[in-house]
Amino acid sequence: VPDAADASALPARIDAALTAFLAKTRPRLESAGPELSVVGDVVSDLLLLGKHLRPAFCYWGWRGAGGGDCDEIVAAASSLDLLHACAIVHDDVMDASDTRRGLPSTHRRFSAQHTSAAWHGSPDAFGVGAAILLGDLCLAWSDEMLATCGLGPEAIRRARTAYDEMRTEVMAGQYLDLVEQARGGGSVERAMRVVRFKSAKYTVERPLHVGGLLADAPAALLDAYTAYGLPIGEAFQLRDDLLGVFGDPGVTGKPAGDDIREGKRTVLVALAMDRADPTERATLEKSIGNPGIDDADIAGVRDVLVSTGATDAVETLIDELTTNAVAALDAAPIDADARTALRGLAVAATQRST
Amino acid sequence: VPDAADASALPARIDAALTAFLAKTRPRLESAGPELSVVGDVVSDLLLLGKHLRPAFCYWGWRGAGGGDCDEIVAAASSLDLLHACAIVHDDVMDASDTRRGLPSTHRRFSAQHTSAAWHGSPDAFGVGAAILLGDLCLAWSDEMLATCGLGPEAIRRARTAYDEMRTEVMAGQYLDLVEQARGGGSVERAMRVVRFKSAKYTVERPLHVGGLLADAPAALLDAYTAYGLPIGEAFQLRDDLLGVFGDPGVTGKPAGDDIREGKRTVLVALAMDRADPTERATLEKSIGNPGIDDADIAGVRDVLVSTGATDAVETLIDELTTNAVAALDAAPIDADARTALRGLAVAATQRST
Repeated sequence: VPDAADASALPARIDAALTAFLAKTRPRLESAGPELSVVGDVVSDLLLLGKHLRPAFCYWGWRGAGGGDCDEIVAAASSLDLLHACAIVHDDVMDASDTRRGLPSTHRRFSAQHTSAAWHGSPDAFGVGAAILLGDLCLAWSDEMLATCGLGPEAIRRARTAYDEMRTEVMAGQYLDLVEQARGGGSVERAMRVVRFKSAKYTVERPLHVGGLLADAPAALLDAYTAYGLPIGEAFQLRDDLLGVFGDPGVTGKPAGDDIREGKRTVLVALAMDRADPTERATLEKSIGNPGIDDADIAGVRDVLVSTGATDAVETLIDELTTNAVAALDAAPIDADARTALRGLAVAATQRST
Repeated sequence: VPDAADASALPARIDAALTAFLAKTRPRLESAGPELSVVGDVVSDLLLLGKHLRPAFCYWGWRGAGGGDCDEIVAAASSLDLLHACAIVHDDVMDASDTRRGLPSTHRRFSAQHTSAAWHGSPDAFGVGAAILLGDLCLAWSDEMLATCGLGPEAIRRARTAYDEMRTEVMAGQYLDLVEQARGGGSVERAMRVVRFKSAKYTVERPLHVGGLLADAPAALLDAYTAYGLPIGEAFQLRDDLLGVFGDPGVTGKPAGDDIREGKRTVLVALAMDRADPTERATLEKSIGNPGIDDADIAGVRDVLVSTGATDAVETLIDELTTNAVAALDAAPIDADARTALRGLAVAATQRST
């Protein structure tokens, strides 16, 4: 049994909770037919490859409110990884991404199955259809896992308010992301709004609230979680945007330049557009959202992101947001172990290379 | 206030419950930005155009178990229409269907928005992305609506076992449907398995169980709901398959021949393949799953479905299943009003033209 106070043991316990949940639900899924076993395999791979960041924030949201360590809170927290599995599988379909974490994306795994079985019709259409259904299954299972985590019905009912907000917010944020991309971008402020809904609330603030509400946290602590969670969540996404352009594909598991090719309208890009001279602006406009660009075009965009000072500005923003978040944490009425763990998570979320 | 015992008032009460739920959740969605109001509009249109069949089975599952009429059970039952909105929106993406109930499908509505705004990138990709997200939102909202229907937490906890089974079953059934289509079909038995998971359990049996469990129905009544629900659900889908080939597009709202073009491997088609002579079989194989077919090809398939006796066999099957279901209902330990209403729903589900 891992030491409950040891934050480093948490990822293995989340793996174990997810494995136990799948051991319960997979036989039910596969009772429909042996064809379903591949669906269970893919869900399992998705869950066990994750960084478990959202469950960690949820767990420490509970501990910070004075909740005692127990397997039930680990199960409740782990349910967020099933929600996230839906988000990434559907996101990869929407972005037509071929890889995720260095492996084929879910729709690619299913299209490969179609091809190798020499089935009728379009492998791509089969892959997309199967990935949509698998994401839906993960979304349904996430809420089943929360509801059956073993904590009392009143605790779960309290937590659902934040859980329901979170699900609406992340879908709203992702829709805004699509709209910004289609519009061809706008202000830094508008890019920041997408970050807030798509990432900051979904990845940090709401997981903390779910954990806090499960432990019946007072309003003052929930406010402190917001004061810490929103800036850390924003910094998390800003780091992601930098990694999407400058990250090492061997470490991030994502091909270099995909974000540029897809036309992602990040804060980084919005800052560069604001600061660009006419030549720099032309370089950005030629390449961002252009599926036909090559490595030289990507290098050209990178140069402009640096020469305009946008990259430095984003690094400064990440530092400021992290400093603000940690100051809020230091002032929060929170359990000491949780304060230490959340300080560590602030670093893990914002100073990562993957 | 409608008469509680009046089954004909139920659809309007379901509309009202869905409208009240949207009045609560739409402002939360639209707080992310005015861009979200179209998402709320599309969800609202989807819900109010529905036949409300699944909520009706759920409501009468409650009443059949002795539950008294109240607005809370109408809200709980109506949550099934949000789940169904997810299913049809994602189904239309997977099938690349242009219309639903005579109107543009959800992904087409969003691609038209992209086109008329002259946005960047592919209108189709934007439409598909928005429809995937909107379906996810409906799936999350369905379970929020059940959880906040106002019935007690213990009742909801009981009902969730059937609700969770149902969501896994329908996604398993839809995946099997994709696989059968890709394999190019198989036995009548295998087509019937898809019907059971994708339709019979999802449309009738599990909605009855959710209603019954909310009212703490005894096991014997739940068994009676299965004995009635599975055959009625199967007959419902068999009717759908006939309408998909022989229905009047002006009434069904679906273009004639879409099911043939997409290669749907229905029980109707499996029966025809079993009974076809070599010429008839060649006609079927040439056209089913062939996107390039014209009206003459569709008429040729229709002729073979009739000449092989498959159409008559499906009509006979619908009659037998309905007779068995009604016999099970007559023998069930159930409230008299509910028995009358469920007899009416058996006819509505299986003798419809839309």
